Amino acid sequence: MVFKKITLIGQSSESFDHAVDDALDRADETLDNVMWMEVEELGVEVASVEGREYQAEVEVAFELE
Amino acid sequence: MVFKKITLIGQSSESFDHAVDDALDRADETLDNVMWMEVEELGVEVASVEGREYQAEVEVAFELE
Amino acid sequence: MVFKKITLIGQSSESFDHAVDDALDRADETLDNVMWMEVEELGVEVASVEGREYQAEVEVAFELE
Amino acid sequence: MVFKKITLIGQSSESFDHAVDDALDRADETLDNVMWMEVEELGVEVASVEGREYQAEVEVAFELE
Amino acid sequence: MVFKKITLIGQSSESFDHAVDDALDRADETLDNVMWMEVEELGVEVASVEGREYQAEVEVAFELE
Amino acid sequence: MVFKKITLIGQSSESFDHAVDDALDRADETLDNVMWMEVEELGVEVASVEGREYQAEVEVAFELE
Amino acid sequence: MVFKKITLIGQSSESFDHAVDDALDRADETLDNVMWMEVEELGVEVASVEGREYQAEVEVAFELE
Amino acid sequence: MVFKKITLIGQSSESFDHAVDDALDRADETLDNVMWMEVEELGVEVASVEGREYQAEVEVAFELE
Amino acid sequence: MVFKKITLIGQSSESFDHAVDDALDRADETLDNVMWMEVEELGVEVASVEGREYQAEVEVAFELE
Amino acid sequence: MVFKKITLIGQSSESFDHAVDDALDRADETLDNVMWMEVEELGVEVASVEGREYQAEVEVAFELE
Amino acid sequence: MVFKKITLIGQSSESFDHAVDDALDRADETLDNVMWMEVEELGVEVASVEGREYQAEVEVAFELE
Amino acid sequence: MVFKKITLIGQSSESFDHAVDDALDRADETLDNVMWMEVEELGVEVASVEGREYQAEVEVAFELE
Repeated sequence: MVFKKITLIGQSSESFDHAVDDALDRADETLDNVMWMEVEELGVEVASVEGREYQAEVEVAFELE
Repeated sequence: MVFKKITLIGQSSESFDHAVDDALDRADETLDNVMWMEVEELGVEVASVEGREYQAEVEVAFELE
Repeated sequence: MVFKKITLIGQSSESFDHAVDDALDRADETLDNVMWMEVEELGVEVASVEGREYQAEVEVAFELE
Repeated sequence: MVFKKITLIGQSSESFDHAVDDALDRADETLDNVMWMEVEELGVEVASVEGREYQAEVEVAFELE
Repeated sequence: MVFKKITLIGQSSESFDHAVDDALDRADETLDNVMWMEVEELGVEVASVEGREYQAEVEVAFELE
Repeated sequence: MVFKKITLIGQSSESFDHAVDDALDRADETLDNVMWMEVEELGVEVASVEGREYQAEVEVAFELE
Repeated sequence: MVFKKITLIGQSSESFDHAVDDALDRADETLDNVMWMEVEELGVEVASVEGREYQAEVEVAFELE
Repeated sequence: MVFKKITLIGQSSESFDHAVDDALDRADETLDNVMWMEVEELGVEVASVEGREYQAEVEVAFELE
Repeated sequence: MVFKKITLIGQSSESFDHAVDDALDRADETLDNVMWMEVEELGVEVASVEGREYQAEVEVAFELE
Repeated sequence: MVFKKITLIGQSSESFDHAVDDALDRADETLDNVMWMEVEELGVEVASVEGREYQAEVEVAFELE
Repeated sequence: MVFKKITLIGQSSESFDHAVDDALDRADETLDNVMWMEVEELGVEVASVEGREYQAEVEVAFELE
Repeated sequence: MVFKKITLIGQSSESFDHAVDDALDRADETLDNVMWMEVEELGVEVASVEGREYQAEVEVAFELE
């Protein structure tokens, strides 16, 4: 049983919690065995969006079959 | 007046804010003089729980009597 | 086009998201071209406040004119 | 000649050396040109396994064709 | 809109700028929506090459469709 | 369910694996619910011992009752 | 004699050296006593620009009068 | 022979050396076998004290019996 | 109530404590509400001075009005 | 009594423990007063060797006479 | 076969690439078996030189005979 | 003009300032062109000495001839 980790950046116009969930939702759609997730960085994009875009860079660990 | 720091990991099925409060509530129950707290790591446990368990590792500083 | 980064610490009695917004609101009041923001540290002040004061240290990047 | 790095977590009930080899064996099965590997983190899982599960998070570099 | 980050190591016999471009060129060939790139490490390989091989380890962020 | 982490340094005259187990054995003797462990530092003491003393600084996480 | 450090991000469509010089030129325009500079981060913006925009985040130290 | 490390913050209105000694004195009062100490952070509190309060966060290692 | 942090480098021909105080004195002269200070780096300049110049890079936090 | 630290990289085709010992053996041959050693990095070379070459980068501290 | 690493700082009035080469040239003059090099820090000295002096701190690894 | 950096650990039974000076004195005895010094770590040895031995690990930069 070997795990692999990938790095995703989720986004939300509402909160960091939603940005993390956004990344995790995406991982769940394409990976069968998501095990856990670690938050690497939190930030807010302002210039290229309307309002504020909360961003969460996360590492998602899943089991390789 | 000397401070001591301990490391706790709080959990919540709802949000990181609740996970931090969970750790801080526990510290308040057993320590008289909690001074401040620093967030060390944020993560989400998926594999061993139902849904998502938000986790916050925090360092809690309190005054030694 | 050169950017400059400054470090602010926002506060909120409610949540880390509000603490981040607090810092960003302050930046928006005094700076014309805020581009993005990075969260550096999250903490909670307990001793010198009533209840809990959520704090977010952030780096705010803006465009120099 | 460009290299790519991926992050794997190998496991072993015996030792950290075996956990590293476990990750490297897996990489060798699916990648043709493994070049080198760097150990990122060592840990032991206790709660969800029998005995102790030694874990090694490693970055594996391989040549892209 | 979720971003993913991968780690590449570009090489050049001339300069670090070329090594970074080498990694970025490779990313552009196989990925449609490269957003930005961060330099992680710079080094020079001497022993196994003729002359000097400038190497740049970079993280490339792209948009997942 | 809140976890606490403590820092121990195990030792062995044989290997780093034994030094890690030494710290973990000690934790198991005095704590009921050890969950996991992370290796923080590896070193070897030479001057004040006979031969070589392998040392492993580890963080042990356990569940607070 | 006290020094102050500020953080600037210079940009260039050509190279990292030019991006560093860009930040340093800006510092020289507005500050009388620039002493030295440290490179903090190198990156490339792709999505919001034509071609590639090389960016260098630097800390510039200058003497306070 | 297993060591344990705890984190203390000593204070002094005079100097960092005294702040370190303050933490070490406290450790000596309650622990029998203090082995060594590492300085983690140095700071000065200004707002909530008269004058300046020098603070030293230290990790103290002692032998578990 | 938002805090801002700036980075200063104090100097002294005598000691690190004096170098820290040097930076803090300067901050007190120009800022009304200095809250606290964190030591970032300690060093000694030798080549360009007579004797030894002790230097302390510090981050000073103050309250924005 | 002043200590000096040097950085060595030991190698072994068998295990990380042997790679550490390899570096320490070399230090013992040429230095009289080796005091202690800290592991900085562990890695495995694959491409330029037969099988796997375990490597350990260590800092060795010794007493200057 | 044991490697040793030393830290050099190369300089150039032209570019960081030349500063790195400057350090590597010096290493090649005095060491027979330079294997590889890692860039640790990049900076620019302004105050004590004419124009700008680009500096690169590098770690050079070579094989001990 | 290439600089080299070496790592020394100075000691003093009195203070960290003296420990730093101890390392710097030693460097001055054997090296002609000491340029500057950076403090890497501060600690106190207790177990193997009488009283307290203040230790300062420093990197000393000097000009290679």
